[in-house]
Amino acid sequence: MGLREQVREKALGAKRAARGLALLSSTVKNKALSAMADGLVEASERLAAENAKDVEAAKKAGLSSALIDRLTLNPKRIEAMAHGIRDIVALPDPVGEVVEMRRRPNDMEVGRVRVPIGLIGIIYESRPNVTADTAALCLKSGNAVLLRGGSEAIHSNTAIASVLNEAATAAGVPDGAISILDTPDRQAVYEMLALEGILDLVIPRGGEGLMRMIAEHAKVPVLKHDKGVCHTYVDREADLEMAESICVNAKVQRPGTCNAMETLLVHQDAAGAFLPRVLSRLAEKKVEIRGCAKTRAIFPDAKSASETDWSNEYLDLVLNVKVVGSFDEAADHIDKYGSQHSDAIVTTSYETARRFLREVDSSAVFVNASTRLHDGYEFGLGAEIGISTTRIHARGTMGLKELTTTKYIVLGSGQVRE
Amino acid sequence: MGLREQVREKALGAKRAARGLALLSSTVKNKALSAMADGLVEASERLAAENAKDVEAAKKAGLSSALIDRLTLNPKRIEAMAHGIRDIVALPDPVGEVVEMRRRPNDMEVGRVRVPIGLIGIIYESRPNVTADTAALCLKSGNAVLLRGGSEAIHSNTAIASVLNEAATAAGVPDGAISILDTPDRQAVYEMLALEGILDLVIPRGGEGLMRMIAEHAKVPVLKHDKGVCHTYVDREADLEMAESICVNAKVQRPGTCNAMETLLVHQDAAGAFLPRVLSRLAEKKVEIRGCAKTRAIFPDAKSASETDWSNEYLDLVLNVKVVGSFDEAADHIDKYGSQHSDAIVTTSYETARRFLREVDSSAVFVNASTRLHDGYEFGLGAEIGISTTRIHARGTMGLKELTTTKYIVLGSGQVRE
Repeated sequence: MGLREQVREKALGAKRAARGLALLSSTVKNKALSAMADGLVEASERLAAENAKDVEAAKKAGLSSALIDRLTLNPKRIEAMAHGIRDIVALPDPVGEVVEMRRRPNDMEVGRVRVPIGLIGIIYESRPNVTADTAALCLKSGNAVLLRGGSEAIHSNTAIASVLNEAATAAGVPDGAISILDTPDRQAVYEMLALEGILDLVIPRGGEGLMRMIAEHAKVPVLKHDKGVCHTYVDREADLEMAESICVNAKVQRPGTCNAMETLLVHQDAAGAFLPRVLSRLAEKKVEIRGCAKTRAIFPDAKSASETDWSNEYLDLVLNVKVVGSFDEAADHIDKYGSQHSDAIVTTSYETARRFLREVDSSAVFVNASTRLHDGYEFGLGAEIGISTTRIHARGTMGLKELTTTKYIVLGSGQVRE
Repeated sequence: MGLREQVREKALGAKRAARGLALLSSTVKNKALSAMADGLVEASERLAAENAKDVEAAKKAGLSSALIDRLTLNPKRIEAMAHGIRDIVALPDPVGEVVEMRRRPNDMEVGRVRVPIGLIGIIYESRPNVTADTAALCLKSGNAVLLRGGSEAIHSNTAIASVLNEAATAAGVPDGAISILDTPDRQAVYEMLALEGILDLVIPRGGEGLMRMIAEHAKVPVLKHDKGVCHTYVDREADLEMAESICVNAKVQRPGTCNAMETLLVHQDAAGAFLPRVLSRLAEKKVEIRGCAKTRAIFPDAKSASETDWSNEYLDLVLNVKVVGSFDEAADHIDKYGSQHSDAIVTTSYETARRFLREVDSSAVFVNASTRLHDGYEFGLGAEIGISTTRIHARGTMGLKELTTTKYIVLGSGQVRE
């Protein structure tokens, strides 16, 4: 059987499982999730052995120690995966929720009820815990899942998915509801993207290369989890102590994430008082500053920012800084160089806050808070499958509800179209 | 300038307009809509002259009289277009609606607010009134639109879009918010589908050929408006008088629509009593019957249905009829041959109705009502841009809300990520 047929067979198996899974009660799904969590812990040795193959290959391939660390599974990390799944048991089941219902003039009731999307493909890189997280979120929301992890974690991911599918099946979930492509061949991703009519949605999580490849080849609906070039704008009227705390948090608390700040914009009237204090503090924390001419006049240690820097997602301890003459200049800069991901203003002005909330067109806009807070848990969704940068279906952080669609239900008593 | 550059230029102009349009108040948008309606009526002569070119070309090309009729604009139809736009003025503006808002434990408020999707591409065929309808719906929901109508209506569509854009611009809408591709070259559609990062969404409305082409080439998000192979299942326990009225309505009230019935399924216990009366009545109304063997045993005038008939969207006075042995057989048939568009059951059983609503996975499921009622006006959305057969973003009939997305808004007082 060729690769195309292999991928198709696996996907069709998962698709068949999707129909039964969509109709399972919350009780059965929650039992399956508990069994999946237990299954991971019980399979610790098997998982460790499979993971060792990936780690060894990574060392041979000369991957960085940071990447090898991300890849490594140990009993504590396996317990953390199980804990993550148990947290999902406690969340409300989105399936079956009636979103709206109204009586029409002809006396029929028309409503919408949440149903699973169907079969979801997840394409991701590196960390094996994503396998467990996404499988559990898809199962809770009634979706079958076809996973495709990075080739560097293939043994770990395949073992995790297999443990999860076995545990779920034993608890009454149709076999194949958690499926994984276990070939390292990159061509399998192309075959997956061509499964029109079988995959109802693909969610890719990864770097720019993956996103470009998917944009180029996908024949199935896609919700991108693309890069974040996030800004904080410190207004003329701002509490500078608060601004400092927010900026430091947004840049250094975890710089390798998509919601970390990449560019600081400061109103010229605040720049003289604000930049020396915030930039010295960031420099102490090893942040490299790349500034505009005005920034460098105020803070001479800054390097000069190039035109391409302004749209760069560093994911590292590097920060662009620009002094702007007005709110409009800040908003225009965000519009031109940003990625419409997460952007913040620090201001004490009601009017300026209101303008920022309306005029800045990002998936999350913040007044007086750190962009790092853009997260499913912080926002109260209970869980997060990722942060969508696509404008349709779900924008920004996605929880369980965003893994569902709706169908109309109509209750009549003989109504016809006049 | 080559075709690719022409399409790109036009799209970029519309994209620039989108940013300003997104921020307009309802008052300005409603004034623009009124001006657009007035503009169409005032331009009746100009529109009639442009339309005459299309009609003449259609006659030369030998198009059917039905198609020529659909294409033709007369004062009454122009008035109807204007009336349709005025109806949209009265609908609530979806933009700015706060969908949810909650206070988090760290005392920040997190909400979601409706915002326009951005720049929407509409690809459609034949009837020029679609140009006015969709332009008005997009404008009301704050979206710029790039239209691409069928080449047979190109003069009419271009004239309508130009009148609408002029009227809107005079009322304060950014120029280009209503844009149209005015070249008959089919290659322009391919160029449109490649506008990744510029077109935020494409909505295609048309036949199977168009859908296949779009599935093959689109690099932008798409909400398909695909075919409807709709079923009515008459249960063992059913009010046969009601069933007859619903079936006749679903088949003959307007057979050329996507929500008309294509297949009738009847439980074997009801078939003997029901089929003779309903099929004679349908035959009287010139409906051709294609039945299974059991159907033909009961109603000998029926032709024999072939395997491909069961998945055919006739859009005509033809009906497949099958006798089934159980609810499960009916549900399996719908799952196998249907298009998950609109499906109905006629039953007096609470339990069977509940099962149908849950287990049949169509964008609209009906109990004791005609599938022809699947419509934005009938469902209370106030307007309809079409019926989406894609599972994400919007499923089934789409109104103004479905032309929006959301963004998260966060109101803080200095919160950072711990």
